[in-house]
Amino acid sequence: MALRVLSAKSSAALDQELMSAGAFSIDQLMELAGLSVSQAVHKLQPLNKGRRILVACGPGNNDADGNCPAGPDAQTGGDGLVAARHLWHYGYQPTMYYPKQSKNELYQRLTTQLHALDIPFAQDFGAALAQTDHVVDAVFGFSFAGEVREPFPAVIAALAAAPVPVLSVDAPSSWDIERGPPPDGPGKAFHPQALVSLTAPKPLVKWFGGRHFVGGRFLSPAMAEKYGLDLPPYEGIDQIVEVPVEGQKL
Amino acid sequence: MALRVLSAKSSAALDQELMSAGAFSIDQLMELAGLSVSQAVHKLQPLNKGRRILVACGPGNNDADGNCPAGPDAQTGGDGLVAARHLWHYGYQPTMYYPKQSKNELYQRLTTQLHALDIPFAQDFGAALAQTDHVVDAVFGFSFAGEVREPFPAVIAALAAAPVPVLSVDAPSSWDIERGPPPDGPGKAFHPQALVSLTAPKPLVKWFGGRHFVGGRFLSPAMAEKYGLDLPPYEGIDQIVEVPVEGQKL
Repeated sequence: MALRVLSAKSSAALDQELMSAGAFSIDQLMELAGLSVSQAVHKLQPLNKGRRILVACGPGNNDADGNCPAGPDAQTGGDGLVAARHLWHYGYQPTMYYPKQSKNELYQRLTTQLHALDIPFAQDFGAALAQTDHVVDAVFGFSFAGEVREPFPAVIAALAAAPVPVLSVDAPSSWDIERGPPPDGPGKAFHPQALVSLTAPKPLVKWFGGRHFVGGRFLSPAMAEKYGLDLPPYEGIDQIVEVPVEGQKL
Repeated sequence: MALRVLSAKSSAALDQELMSAGAFSIDQLMELAGLSVSQAVHKLQPLNKGRRILVACGPGNNDADGNCPAGPDAQTGGDGLVAARHLWHYGYQPTMYYPKQSKNELYQRLTTQLHALDIPFAQDFGAALAQTDHVVDAVFGFSFAGEVREPFPAVIAALAAAPVPVLSVDAPSSWDIERGPPPDGPGKAFHPQALVSLTAPKPLVKWFGGRHFVGGRFLSPAMAEKYGLDLPPYEGIDQIVEVPVEGQKL
């Protein structure tokens, strides 16, 4: 059975509701989202298959005050920052690519937490890509719309040609949330090996043919019902579950 | 090899440092601490052995402004609130006993998150204890000192005589952090089956003879070295690890 999908607009509304009526803080939700991402990496890339993980983080999406205007799912870069910390604790060797660092206070703290672990920050994405076993694409998430700004066109082109597996967070970066791969530009040929959808799959999964995980184990049945979603069939204490998706072509 | 222990005073200093130089928010740390507690429950009480978990939460430890003066380890009640939410998502049936509800904003939000899952709050601890398969003791943690105030003396006496296993968080409630079981009072006879120490074991483990877990997988090597601690030998993606402890008598 395929899980139902959540539009970009509804995803933003659900995030806002989690943080208002749901009483979650963005710190909490991002911690759990990043933890889910780290568990998906562990599933895809066991420690004995190579420990070097390149985590590419987007600029975040801040308003003029440096606040996160939308919730954790919109903040894909932050999910990558949290995931990298957990990966380090699991025994991986993460390297960050985070060229446009957010002034958002939470993002800055998450970055400090990585510096405390001496996790390196790469300047040259291509060079970093040549020295890794796996990539986490946390560049653009479900709030992405419009154009891919510098320096990310080259990053997405490199991801599309990556010699190692790529796990995208919420969306293959530069894909349209409703319409999937862009008709042209660097993302046209970008088909990552795996995707982890946070809270719920987005409509773009219709165009996605790789392994698909859902994470973010905090949705209440009442919220799922309100947004027309399924509670994913998580097992045990896992924060992620691998799922088939309607329209998925393998 | 036994893990080194952390005094009450050093525990408070470490928590403060995690939140200042370490750049963690209390929301983040408490989420990870409560997640650790939930994983210890899952290890001790697999779902097929009975799903009813009674979570007893203490009053928290707030200053006049309702802020948490110390960190997540001091806030044992909050760890219980977080753990209960995760336990619900794993498929357990948690019941809360939380008679002195904190006005602290984080505690209030964590409580709202439990109400959203329709988790019941019991008024009568004895009655709740007669209808559960397992207990989480998140009444008093490492910041406990002095006297046990109402209604907790009867709660601790009931825990000491509980017909089901009890997991204590950071300390068997009412135990002195440095000197172990109190010489008299309801806690004298309280020897829970299991203990989960957050961040590091406290000196009281010398008097503890049950199963012992360490949780809170966020300590950096630099912080561990500064405080004379070991990084616990966590495995895989686990947030807890079962450990022997110096002086532990089984």
